[in-house]
Amino acid sequence: MDFSALPQEELEQIIERIAREMLAEGLRTPAGRDVAICSCHGCGSSACPDTLARGFDAGADRIGIEQKLPAAAAHLAARIDHTLLKPDATYTQLDQLCAEARDFHFATVCVNPVNVRRCARLLAGTRTKVCSVVGFPLGATMADAKSYETRRVIGEGACEVDMVIHVGALKSGDDDAVRRDIAAVADACRDGGAILKVILECCLLNDDEKVRGCKLSVAAGADFVKTSTGFSTGGATVADVALMRRAVGRAVGVKAAGGIRDLATAQAMQSAGADRIGASASVKIVNEVAGAR
Amino acid sequence: MDFSALPQEELEQIIERIAREMLAEGLRTPAGRDVAICSCHGCGSSACPDTLARGFDAGADRIGIEQKLPAAAAHLAARIDHTLLKPDATYTQLDQLCAEARDFHFATVCVNPVNVRRCARLLAGTRTKVCSVVGFPLGATMADAKSYETRRVIGEGACEVDMVIHVGALKSGDDDAVRRDIAAVADACRDGGAILKVILECCLLNDDEKVRGCKLSVAAGADFVKTSTGFSTGGATVADVALMRRAVGRAVGVKAAGGIRDLATAQAMQSAGADRIGASASVKIVNEVAGAR
Repeated sequence: MDFSALPQEELEQIIERIAREMLAEGLRTPAGRDVAICSCHGCGSSACPDTLARGFDAGADRIGIEQKLPAAAAHLAARIDHTLLKPDATYTQLDQLCAEARDFHFATVCVNPVNVRRCARLLAGTRTKVCSVVGFPLGATMADAKSYETRRVIGEGACEVDMVIHVGALKSGDDDAVRRDIAAVADACRDGGAILKVILECCLLNDDEKVRGCKLSVAAGADFVKTSTGFSTGGATVADVALMRRAVGRAVGVKAAGGIRDLATAQAMQSAGADRIGASASVKIVNEVAGAR
Repeated sequence: MDFSALPQEELEQIIERIAREMLAEGLRTPAGRDVAICSCHGCGSSACPDTLARGFDAGADRIGIEQKLPAAAAHLAARIDHTLLKPDATYTQLDQLCAEARDFHFATVCVNPVNVRRCARLLAGTRTKVCSVVGFPLGATMADAKSYETRRVIGEGACEVDMVIHVGALKSGDDDAVRRDIAAVADACRDGGAILKVILECCLLNDDEKVRGCKLSVAAGADFVKTSTGFSTGGATVADVALMRRAVGRAVGVKAAGGIRDLATAQAMQSAGADRIGASASVKIVNEVAGAR
């Protein structure tokens, strides 16, 4: 069966049922699996069916899971980039961020380049990865400087990279410059085995520019497109997420970020097609799920 | 006479009188000059006494000046970085910025790295230089990435570099990290013959942190300290400019930037000790001087 053809809501329900049953009753290998059954694009959570399947495929008979949260909360947490990008973040605040990420098993902590090494050390041996940002938040540095920064954050321990496009080039109709800029970072990510998310900064774009940005991102090798930096005039909107999902199809992820401060907003983004959420209020959001059950 | 001991206002009046007289009546070499008589730190304007003196020192008998603005307006324009840093600036807007800079003889155009080459080409042969920004506006990328970006913007044609400090390190008391970060960019600027301005992002700092940031900047080789990026929670204030001037003494420049939209504000910053102004409303500000006379 081609799960990718199912409506997003139905797919999420199936995923959640599978995860809950596996967690509650013991784990059997999903024999004959030939398509991914989860839309998480490698979230790495032990509550994720894909992660479990990979464990069994690698030869495990039984997989131990430390699971403090209800399955639905864990499933959401594994789709959240727990984010702290303000420039005045102190070392103490970063340590707190990583402690929360360990406890809640967020997909990643999303931090500035200068903080990657500290967070990678703090999260070593956990399932939470480090995500960093490149050319952030203006996207207005040169392609090779973005490439250099990308290789450096990967070298420091980042497994995911959120880059900002050359917005001015897109608005000037210079699509080739936009594509080359993304491709330079995509090359660096591929070399380092990192996932690339491409931030369009939708609040600065019209719909035509958003769609062109999506298509150029896919062509240049993006793993995700992402709505916003959280540092401009607006954050993620349901309409933008839906537009981006239509533009990229199912092959590429969509990350909604900027202004997502509660569960209802996070769920609205997911319903519109987001398979990753960027948020600073991640603990509150996940606790809302846990409290709601 | 030690002009540097004069009150700022008196000094400005003397400079303006000298410039006006020179422009109006012809130019004589200021023999015996052993101290700079202008606080512009190399503004390069033909209305600047230092520039004129350097011309005569180099052997000129007479210097031709193309001067469309009244002397006071020209003197102010030569102290302004005409700024366009929004990420969605189009090529057309950049061309307009450079045309204005040519007409008004601003000290520099201040643009993002990706736009340096275009502006350097447009301003070749004029007295307006290109200034670019590094680690901007968060300051939260690694020192070597800032250094790489600095060398690249200088290579593209930038003569001045405005970098943002590692704010989080300063707030965490890690002064050595702050100093090393600035020094990495200062080395790159020295190698490339560029002026370095160090942005503290004062709105995120308390007074102790501002003073520490100034001292660390001077120790690491800054030519200027600068109040703000214009992308955070606040811009330049008179109090911050005065504090920074006291902290750095007369050897290093102070640039006020962020929220300076009229002549009165620009003049208040100068009275407090600023010898460079960063503004997007530069044309309006200079026209206010011209209109006021």
